[in-house]
Amino acid sequence: MAHNGIDMAMKVLKKSQRVFLDHAGATPTEDRVLAAMMPYFKGSFANPSALYAEGVTAKNALLEARKKVAACLSAHADEIVFTSSGTESDNLAIFGTFASAVSKKIVNPHIITSAFEHPAVLEAVLACEKQGAKVSYLKPNKDGFIDPGDVKKALTKKTILVSCMYANNEIGTIQPIREIAKVIRHFKKHSIQKSAFPYFHIDASQAAVYAQISVEDLHADLLTLDGAKIYGPKGIGMLFVRRGVHISPMILGGGQEEGRRSGTESLPLIVGFAEAFSIAATEAVSEAKRVLPLRELLIKGVLHIFPRAHLNGSLEMRLPNNANFCFPGQDGEFLVLRLDAKGIAVSGSSSCRTLSENIRSYVVDLLGDARCGESSVRFTLGKSTTKKDIQYVLSVLKKMFS
Amino acid sequence: MAHNGIDMAMKVLKKSQRVFLDHAGATPTEDRVLAAMMPYFKGSFANPSALYAEGVTAKNALLEARKKVAACLSAHADEIVFTSSGTESDNLAIFGTFASAVSKKIVNPHIITSAFEHPAVLEAVLACEKQGAKVSYLKPNKDGFIDPGDVKKALTKKTILVSCMYANNEIGTIQPIREIAKVIRHFKKHSIQKSAFPYFHIDASQAAVYAQISVEDLHADLLTLDGAKIYGPKGIGMLFVRRGVHISPMILGGGQEEGRRSGTESLPLIVGFAEAFSIAATEAVSEAKRVLPLRELLIKGVLHIFPRAHLNGSLEMRLPNNANFCFPGQDGEFLVLRLDAKGIAVSGSSSCRTLSENIRSYVVDLLGDARCGESSVRFTLGKSTTKKDIQYVLSVLKKMFS
Repeated sequence: MAHNGIDMAMKVLKKSQRVFLDHAGATPTEDRVLAAMMPYFKGSFANPSALYAEGVTAKNALLEARKKVAACLSAHADEIVFTSSGTESDNLAIFGTFASAVSKKIVNPHIITSAFEHPAVLEAVLACEKQGAKVSYLKPNKDGFIDPGDVKKALTKKTILVSCMYANNEIGTIQPIREIAKVIRHFKKHSIQKSAFPYFHIDASQAAVYAQISVEDLHADLLTLDGAKIYGPKGIGMLFVRRGVHISPMILGGGQEEGRRSGTESLPLIVGFAEAFSIAATEAVSEAKRVLPLRELLIKGVLHIFPRAHLNGSLEMRLPNNANFCFPGQDGEFLVLRLDAKGIAVSGSSSCRTLSENIRSYVVDLLGDARCGESSVRFTLGKSTTKKDIQYVLSVLKKMFS
Repeated sequence: MAHNGIDMAMKVLKKSQRVFLDHAGATPTEDRVLAAMMPYFKGSFANPSALYAEGVTAKNALLEARKKVAACLSAHADEIVFTSSGTESDNLAIFGTFASAVSKKIVNPHIITSAFEHPAVLEAVLACEKQGAKVSYLKPNKDGFIDPGDVKKALTKKTILVSCMYANNEIGTIQPIREIAKVIRHFKKHSIQKSAFPYFHIDASQAAVYAQISVEDLHADLLTLDGAKIYGPKGIGMLFVRRGVHISPMILGGGQEEGRRSGTESLPLIVGFAEAFSIAATEAVSEAKRVLPLRELLIKGVLHIFPRAHLNGSLEMRLPNNANFCFPGQDGEFLVLRLDAKGIAVSGSSSCRTLSENIRSYVVDLLGDARCGESSVRFTLGKSTTKKDIQYVLSVLKKMFS
């Protein structure tokens, strides 16, 4: 049989489970997180808006979760807005700022963003554009970085928002957030008009497991996190909104979250998110240190097996769990399916791909190598990833490409 | 001691737990629901958009949940849009219809709703009004019902939406939904313009535990449900969107839910919602039958203890778990706190009260008895409510008012 080599490798490695290497697409909910959530499904289930004892208990738990998240971010509890996802948080940051600017009678407000943001940012910005906003889409360079100098050039007195991700979800490159923040601060300082705009929004969804996120340090006005990407539950996100930053709400009703996001608060999800983010913040450095040599082993092995392959985006300043390869001449989607058949879960491009109907990656395309848009595969390691997993992946790839 | 009588009653009734009678405010997540959810937190956690086996499994589970909900509603699976709450569903129905009408160049589109809808509807309608919509707010009569004749009178060729709740969240009165639907169908049939508008939206959040909801039977175009009110998890809602009904999305990004609601799907919540709604649909009739005599016992007892009290809203055509009393001369909020001190959780008005800063109920106010807005208390029974609970409540009230 053709696959005897791999079958043997599987036996040698005692692999009965599959190898999941798409942690940028989804993370499992950690046991510690699930344990924190459980008391709030049926025990302490009351509505935090209620006046009676159970409501007060729920309200206190909500406040504790808010404080816990705030402490990890170096923020204040009242700056934390819980939403239903990273996507909703991104939308709220963008639509909220746009609507706020419109309510302040700013005509054709200007937004700066990168061309390789997540669709949750790009689609929202596009919708603002249709409603009269002017948008500058900054292109990354071939290494996958936005140039703070381009932000500087793009800023105008009508700029209301700069939205840039902390780390790209497909290629993992860490953007020069601090430098961009500096450019914005400098612009504001020397601006004649004393405006609160432009706000600086950072989507840090992909970064939080491997980087300690401080809104003070990053000078963020708005910052997105997503429970689904930090070993928390799915269905919960957060938007940090700096004091003094005014965004109009998207979801209206009972006025929860200080009027910034209505709907009965989901305490199990909120408490779970707080626990997951707290774990992420505490363990970011050690987890980055643990996963980095595994990722290096993968990269070294892949480039050895397929010498024409190369990393999409820089190796430097890259999330330690991300390896996104271009395999020139190969079909990325087909590779994903072939690896799947061998028990390995990886991704062709992002899971979210409204922007292009096909599998082609607009992120990889932006790096400029026309061969790579359809020929790339993303491996994103996670907390459960072991050296044996990587060895198994390499043995499969070796067989595949030999 | 003044409270010896109650203390004795507590002992006699062997009450060690509190009596929770605010099920319109929140319901606990049922064990069966939680059991259904558990496999999706860490076992089957993959992103349903992913191509590999785990993604396909997740996608199938998502489809099964969608089919399960659709079957209970007599709907098609592709008509089910999962959201993060009843509030988001209401907002999506209203903003989505409004934006769709605006995109079709309808100037000053007209919306008909009742004046005692949930804030999730009223605040959204108000926001549309600020953007140019004309709105007819229909007042309920003193018994707490909207008159289908008023809907008929209000309909114009510019009407894009009629939004009416199935049962009021504060006073539990069941609205003449079928008659309203009939009025709308008749209007459409005899309209010269062959338009898809007006859509008919029903917020059925409060009704689903006690009524079998069929979108065919109700002739709904849009229908809202909320996991938090049907013994499901919090943080999940659903909007039924009839085939051919076009609503613009609110949350943009990866294009999930057929582009109608972006954001990674939360499988645990979706599967939990489907299980909870399936249980509700199966057990609605028996649970209504079980809770009704308990509610009757409560009403009879309260009117005996406090003869000047009366029910807010009709006794007929009322959710079987709802008893909302006006206690003339009493302060509703104070009563809630006094009952709380005796281990009983009830509500003054709705938990959601952006529309009025104070405790005063706009719903009760609309019924026309000026004494009642501040003097009302809502008791909403639930699956755990027993005869002993009601007897205990009556013993406490008797002591309180004697």
